[in-house]
Amino acid sequence: MRTGTELGARPHLPGGFQDFFAEDVLARSEMIATICRVYERFGFAPLETPAVEYLDVLGKYLPESDEAEGGVFAFKDDDRRWLALRYDLTAPLSRVVAQYGDGLPVPYRRYQVGPVWRREKPGPDRFRQFYQCDFDTVGSASPAADAEVCAVVCAALEELGIPSEQFEVRVNNRKVLNGVLDQIHVPPDRHLAVLRAIDKLDRLGVEGVVDLLGKGRQDPSGDYAEGAGLTAAQSEAVRAFVSAGGDSRGSVIERLSRLVGDSAVGREGVNELSNINRLLDAMGLPSRLVRFDPTVVRGLGYYTGAVFEATLTFEVTDQGGLSRSFGSIAGGGRYDDLVKRFTGAEVPATGLSIGVDRLLAALKALGRTNKTRRTGPVVVTVMDSDRLAEYQNMVSELRRSGIAAEIYLGDRGLRAQMKYADRRGAPVVIIAGTDEFQRGEVSIKDMRLGTDLSSDIADRDEWRNSQRVQRSIARANLVAAVREILTQ
Amino acid sequence: MRTGTELGARPHLPGGFQDFFAEDVLARSEMIATICRVYERFGFAPLETPAVEYLDVLGKYLPESDEAEGGVFAFKDDDRRWLALRYDLTAPLSRVVAQYGDGLPVPYRRYQVGPVWRREKPGPDRFRQFYQCDFDTVGSASPAADAEVCAVVCAALEELGIPSEQFEVRVNNRKVLNGVLDQIHVPPDRHLAVLRAIDKLDRLGVEGVVDLLGKGRQDPSGDYAEGAGLTAAQSEAVRAFVSAGGDSRGSVIERLSRLVGDSAVGREGVNELSNINRLLDAMGLPSRLVRFDPTVVRGLGYYTGAVFEATLTFEVTDQGGLSRSFGSIAGGGRYDDLVKRFTGAEVPATGLSIGVDRLLAALKALGRTNKTRRTGPVVVTVMDSDRLAEYQNMVSELRRSGIAAEIYLGDRGLRAQMKYADRRGAPVVIIAGTDEFQRGEVSIKDMRLGTDLSSDIADRDEWRNSQRVQRSIARANLVAAVREILTQ
Repeated sequence: MRTGTELGARPHLPGGFQDFFAEDVLARSEMIATICRVYERFGFAPLETPAVEYLDVLGKYLPESDEAEGGVFAFKDDDRRWLALRYDLTAPLSRVVAQYGDGLPVPYRRYQVGPVWRREKPGPDRFRQFYQCDFDTVGSASPAADAEVCAVVCAALEELGIPSEQFEVRVNNRKVLNGVLDQIHVPPDRHLAVLRAIDKLDRLGVEGVVDLLGKGRQDPSGDYAEGAGLTAAQSEAVRAFVSAGGDSRGSVIERLSRLVGDSAVGREGVNELSNINRLLDAMGLPSRLVRFDPTVVRGLGYYTGAVFEATLTFEVTDQGGLSRSFGSIAGGGRYDDLVKRFTGAEVPATGLSIGVDRLLAALKALGRTNKTRRTGPVVVTVMDSDRLAEYQNMVSELRRSGIAAEIYLGDRGLRAQMKYADRRGAPVVIIAGTDEFQRGEVSIKDMRLGTDLSSDIADRDEWRNSQRVQRSIARANLVAAVREILTQ
Repeated sequence: MRTGTELGARPHLPGGFQDFFAEDVLARSEMIATICRVYERFGFAPLETPAVEYLDVLGKYLPESDEAEGGVFAFKDDDRRWLALRYDLTAPLSRVVAQYGDGLPVPYRRYQVGPVWRREKPGPDRFRQFYQCDFDTVGSASPAADAEVCAVVCAALEELGIPSEQFEVRVNNRKVLNGVLDQIHVPPDRHLAVLRAIDKLDRLGVEGVVDLLGKGRQDPSGDYAEGAGLTAAQSEAVRAFVSAGGDSRGSVIERLSRLVGDSAVGREGVNELSNINRLLDAMGLPSRLVRFDPTVVRGLGYYTGAVFEATLTFEVTDQGGLSRSFGSIAGGGRYDDLVKRFTGAEVPATGLSIGVDRLLAALKALGRTNKTRRTGPVVVTVMDSDRLAEYQNMVSELRRSGIAAEIYLGDRGLRAQMKYADRRGAPVVIIAGTDEFQRGEVSIKDMRLGTDLSSDIADRDEWRNSQRVQRSIARANLVAAVREILTQ
């Protein structure tokens, strides 16, 4: 009854959306399962909210964006109210916390994995549906909750097989920067401009940032970027702040402590870092792995306390052929305004979101995804369609022993069947025709050995000749022989 | 920056959408993982398509519905083309098959699990987002593929712990009914009316159906239902068809064979059933478990050959207090028009969709979901916030041993902490204050034993007194003692 489509509709996807086939689905599921296992070990419990929410409940804006238009896929419900696809997993969390209130344990510690949708212009690495994998502790102001965020992401990356030399978690604190800026009398309406200047550190270097903090800066292209209008002394203090990172967390804390002087909010921030440091030490997480780094500003305009960014430090070659470190795969922070938009109340919350697709790309680059070569089903070829029931018996036996297996269900000859088995990643192919049935035997081909040969072999006899990879066994030994190959 | 929401937006979900908390998420994930394991054992490989597709590519209509309006959540892309949320997993499959063509193995055997969305009026048991769990074999006309559908659903239900006495798979064939109707000269434009009449068998009984096949029928309520206009002889033949089920598959085939006479399409259908029967026998699936049943018409207007319906036969009490058998949890069939709407070509396909939420409800009714009582994390209470690092050491040790554990991260007293641990389903609570630290001990409480007591116990001393459930152990034995409780 699918008559709604005119014949000839072109079968394709809108830009920014993707299909994932077996290998990718399995690699991602396995990665997500590992991450969730770590989240659960740290005491987080799963939550699943629907893809669709009221637009005004989600909020119209994306985090870290002040653009009003776009960003969200929205549509009207039958009652004319606007619905939207969630654009992250934090907005639904804030709705859940506001909605269920006392019905939830306090602190509420949940994790959630799932796709989110962004109405953006799609690009080569920019998708309109992608997975996030978040955990948050809501209702706790304890620095232990912040320290734990670092521990969770370290544990997850290690459990995924990434050596600790190849990643780091960088921690900053919004209050410390606020304190520094207070101390040097930068008015709050200039804070955002300062953040934006610091955010360009990677690209412009310290001197470029200092230019941007002051009068502004002319690009090599000729474009002029407006400055934050800080005095030279103020700029120097900010330069000292962004240069305060480095060696041990303890020394960073000392330097920051001097920079915030007697600013109340600054002292609070330094205290928080200090508590987090103590707990990181207790958890055996060294300064090299979890680093205090004042140059981390991503999200600093959004979060209200600690800010976290996890980066992979191994080198990859980018599309332009340049070598660069892999970069950020997770970010988060303390955000005390979570339910403010519903209730007006401040509820302390801290957490982190892992970018599933970026991390999966990293695992692939590291060769850390399961080699899914030859993990398809055992394929039982059909030489004689009158004996389907006998072939069926073979797959049933294999399946009963927990071995994935199937009959070839197409209608083509042995060569096409071998090609099919090869494309399915079959580890073993079973071949049985009249001769074999008469002798009470089957032929069994080890595709792991035979991969190189399969494309050249044209007929049955040639198959038989490739003795190294194919041999006859008694029918009764089928399961044992297949298992022997699979466990090699 | 979530300033897009005015303060006071009411935190709630649109009708027909649901949140799922820990226990439900875990029960469903586990159920889905079991089903997918079975799908893989039968040789199906995972596919994941995005939630959003072009509306005209999905088709505007739902299967088994001829309503043009509604049914789908649709919205316009920036280029004004209509996008929509998928309403099932078959429409995306047909797009994939048409799009990738020769890039896929033939037959293409995929499974897919995920939510689908329907723009419908929500009701008590009617949701606008729900999960489906499908498998299909595309590009095979073999009866082995149909027989396998039955085997897969039986294996999945058994693996989920449902005894084979409590379910059955009912099989019908569209071609057989077409053959019967051909044989008695019912014109094709009456076929749908006949299907609709048969579909009311449960409610009206055979005589009611015969009325509907003929002149029509007056309801007890006075409403008059138009009849299909069949002659008495024609109605008798249809009555014989719907009564042809019963004992063994072999006898059903014999009766159907007589009814289709020399109708070509009818003979084809009977042949298909006959081949399926042979293979079901080979797979050891008896007639009681996989039954040939001409009264199955659900989907018969949609599918082109075999039709499958899996039902759970155990009794449940419905909302009105009446006992009834649980009913359908999966449906499918052979559908050869899968890519016709794109390419005009017929591609034979067969498969089945499990209704995840219905099946989960059934598992709950059977007590077959994991008792998730007390499967939360071990909670380490905080008696002395200056010793956070020492508490942190405890959870780190537990986690390193693979035990889910957390520090209580709130700021309330022991009583609230015990209540929190109880709500989290903590199996064990660790309590350590100044006394314990001085003695090098910790108190360990077995929450599985103590559940009944916890709500009445007001202070620390009373806790200490409940010796049966709480005892002091040496700090060094923490992990061993917790593990001992967990493995009891």
